[in-house]
Amino acid sequence: MRLSKSFIKTLREAPKDETAKNGALLVRAGFIHKEMAGVYDYLPLGLRVIENIKSIIREELNKLGCEEISMTALQNPEPWEKTGRFADSEVDIWFKTELNSGGVLGLAPTHEEPITNMLRTYISSYKDLPLSVYQFQTKFRNELRAKSGILRGREFLMKDLYSFHDSEEDLDKFYAEVEKAYNRIFDRLGIGDCTYETFASGGIFSKYSHEFQTLIPVGEDTIYHNNDKSLVFNKEVFNDEVLAEFNVDKADFAETTGAEVGNIFKLKFKYSEPLGLKFIDEDNNAKTVYMGCYGIGVSRLMGVITEKFADEKGLIWPESVAPFKYYLVGIGDEGTKKADEIYSQHQDQIIYDDRDSRIGEKFADAELMGIPYRIVISDKTLSEDSAELVSRATGETAMITLENLAQTLAGK
Amino acid sequence: MRLSKSFIKTLREAPKDETAKNGALLVRAGFIHKEMAGVYDYLPLGLRVIENIKSIIREELNKLGCEEISMTALQNPEPWEKTGRFADSEVDIWFKTELNSGGVLGLAPTHEEPITNMLRTYISSYKDLPLSVYQFQTKFRNELRAKSGILRGREFLMKDLYSFHDSEEDLDKFYAEVEKAYNRIFDRLGIGDCTYETFASGGIFSKYSHEFQTLIPVGEDTIYHNNDKSLVFNKEVFNDEVLAEFNVDKADFAETTGAEVGNIFKLKFKYSEPLGLKFIDEDNNAKTVYMGCYGIGVSRLMGVITEKFADEKGLIWPESVAPFKYYLVGIGDEGTKKADEIYSQHQDQIIYDDRDSRIGEKFADAELMGIPYRIVISDKTLSEDSAELVSRATGETAMITLENLAQTLAGK
Repeated sequence: MRLSKSFIKTLREAPKDETAKNGALLVRAGFIHKEMAGVYDYLPLGLRVIENIKSIIREELNKLGCEEISMTALQNPEPWEKTGRFADSEVDIWFKTELNSGGVLGLAPTHEEPITNMLRTYISSYKDLPLSVYQFQTKFRNELRAKSGILRGREFLMKDLYSFHDSEEDLDKFYAEVEKAYNRIFDRLGIGDCTYETFASGGIFSKYSHEFQTLIPVGEDTIYHNNDKSLVFNKEVFNDEVLAEFNVDKADFAETTGAEVGNIFKLKFKYSEPLGLKFIDEDNNAKTVYMGCYGIGVSRLMGVITEKFADEKGLIWPESVAPFKYYLVGIGDEGTKKADEIYSQHQDQIIYDDRDSRIGEKFADAELMGIPYRIVISDKTLSEDSAELVSRATGETAMITLENLAQTLAGK
Repeated sequence: MRLSKSFIKTLREAPKDETAKNGALLVRAGFIHKEMAGVYDYLPLGLRVIENIKSIIREELNKLGCEEISMTALQNPEPWEKTGRFADSEVDIWFKTELNSGGVLGLAPTHEEPITNMLRTYISSYKDLPLSVYQFQTKFRNELRAKSGILRGREFLMKDLYSFHDSEEDLDKFYAEVEKAYNRIFDRLGIGDCTYETFASGGIFSKYSHEFQTLIPVGEDTIYHNNDKSLVFNKEVFNDEVLAEFNVDKADFAETTGAEVGNIFKLKFKYSEPLGLKFIDEDNNAKTVYMGCYGIGVSRLMGVITEKFADEKGLIWPESVAPFKYYLVGIGDEGTKKADEIYSQHQDQIIYDDRDSRIGEKFADAELMGIPYRIVISDKTLSEDSAELVSRATGETAMITLENLAQTLAGK
């Protein structure tokens, strides 16, 4: 991306009502634009981060044989009425609207009901099971307050996966596979070290669910962890009964705050029973399908990564999600000529700051945008046949020969 | 894709209320699922078609230097009130909803107002112009009737591009580039031959806009074209005054029906003036930004392509948008073994029908799904070191040596 040709620019100030660090920084760095509290547009750099997060999740889910679909936001009340979840008294974050031709619709805050309902068309026999289906889809939640930037949106992007099984054992097996896939995903996103699988409350059909909590100071959840964080509980299940069950002592646990970036849940019959999702088993008996659901907050992850790594100079992106890996600046005639040449050969990886502005401003923008590596080529570095390479995360500065730089950019 | 592992199956019947050919066929072939009139889910094969269409559009727009973003569905009334378009009396297809914290919101039927409003942050000087920004985004339109399948959705996917200029000449120049890009896009989508650029009504600031109309019997627009279709008018501008302006005779024009797959519009000051989108020119004068907008109906295109090519056996996809290029069937022990081997090497291009079902059913599904080429490998074809290759579009059948097949699949 050539900055001189892009419409984005960094901003001196975030919107006055933007109190969250992630929201303020991402707006200032030109990654997102605030439409209203909890509702943000994704600008070119922000959209690239989102797409990078999606790609990592997609790859790991496809390895499990999950199939990608895309369901609708507009929701017919019928399947939701069968589970009792259309009533505002049960689910208080619905956005509702009316059809001109008559009738109330909802905007999906999640998709258990429509996916369960839809699969009645596709599941009839044990031969159709197991199966697992996911989507990256915009969810709508009518939050009373939305002051956490993109950590809690009224309109936000979620990956939701649903699995369908003919037995509890098969559900358990797949659930364990998703646990592993989620750990791989958070590792690849650069937050594996600070993201913990946490016991959380279950439902009618299962005692616990699991959340993946990334430790950040502004996380909305209170969690308790033991010394090596091998055992972590959400506050909602951190009580004497549970401690006794796990045979652990309250005194060995420390309190901290986490942001829930994923959750996995053994639903069993919670939705398949009221919605009548059944299959015929080998003995010709009609049985209710076992279900699991598995979410990851995609846009929330962008906010969590921002909160986790940003410093006083701005954003810091892990390489795997960074919109571009390099930020290139040419200084002087020869430096600029060389920079032009390098950019033309590696456009996909580089933000090229070819704007007519002061070097100090360019360096400040490179830091604010959080691009992993800054490359500077000047007449001085060229006199050593080299470029300067600065790591955003560590600040480490090194000279790299043009030959090595070419090889690095070519991925060698 | 291994059909035995996929949740999709073809259906004997479409929903009873599905009267449109495109809707009925796409549901039966397992590409989409109907939630309600005008509201459809995209299943794995349907989503692949949508992604293929998006990729072609994205490539052509990126060549023009357009930047991709993603705006929100939820809309603050304020910018729409400035143009008078929030009132239901002006725009009668709004879905509206209410914030729990108070206030009415709309679900965007289009995005001229929010993009114009947003760019007030990013445009201040003539140096910031020109620029062009696009998105693939879900639009909501509260249509009173929605009986045309995915040709007219209440929730549908659109590509909308907006351009911003410091002069009318620059707008004209970019508009001409988009015209060419649109022609390339429709060519690549396989409908170039039957898609015509059509004069349609303009607005306050321009006499005409242009539509791209694909000739299909169920198209909602009435259009008039001359002999070689070099001059085409939408009915709304086909009158004596216009005919005189173009110096042509009504008698030389034939009436037909088209589906609007794209439109391009010189907006000039229509939105920039009421929303106050200005720039400072070289002489330090504040001037209003010139704008253009350019739409393509992405999900509609999937319906138009269906209507255009489908026959009595089912769908027929042009190669460029087909979810997979090949449909593979193995017959007999050796044939199945060889098919397994070929599938394992080229999974991305192949639907492998490895289900335990009759050959006739497999062939019928291959036709219903409209996959461009069916490959059959049997003990008989293997005795000639060959496979049978059948074109879905032409029905042409040929034997291909396994060596040539391997080269074809490898893209050589």
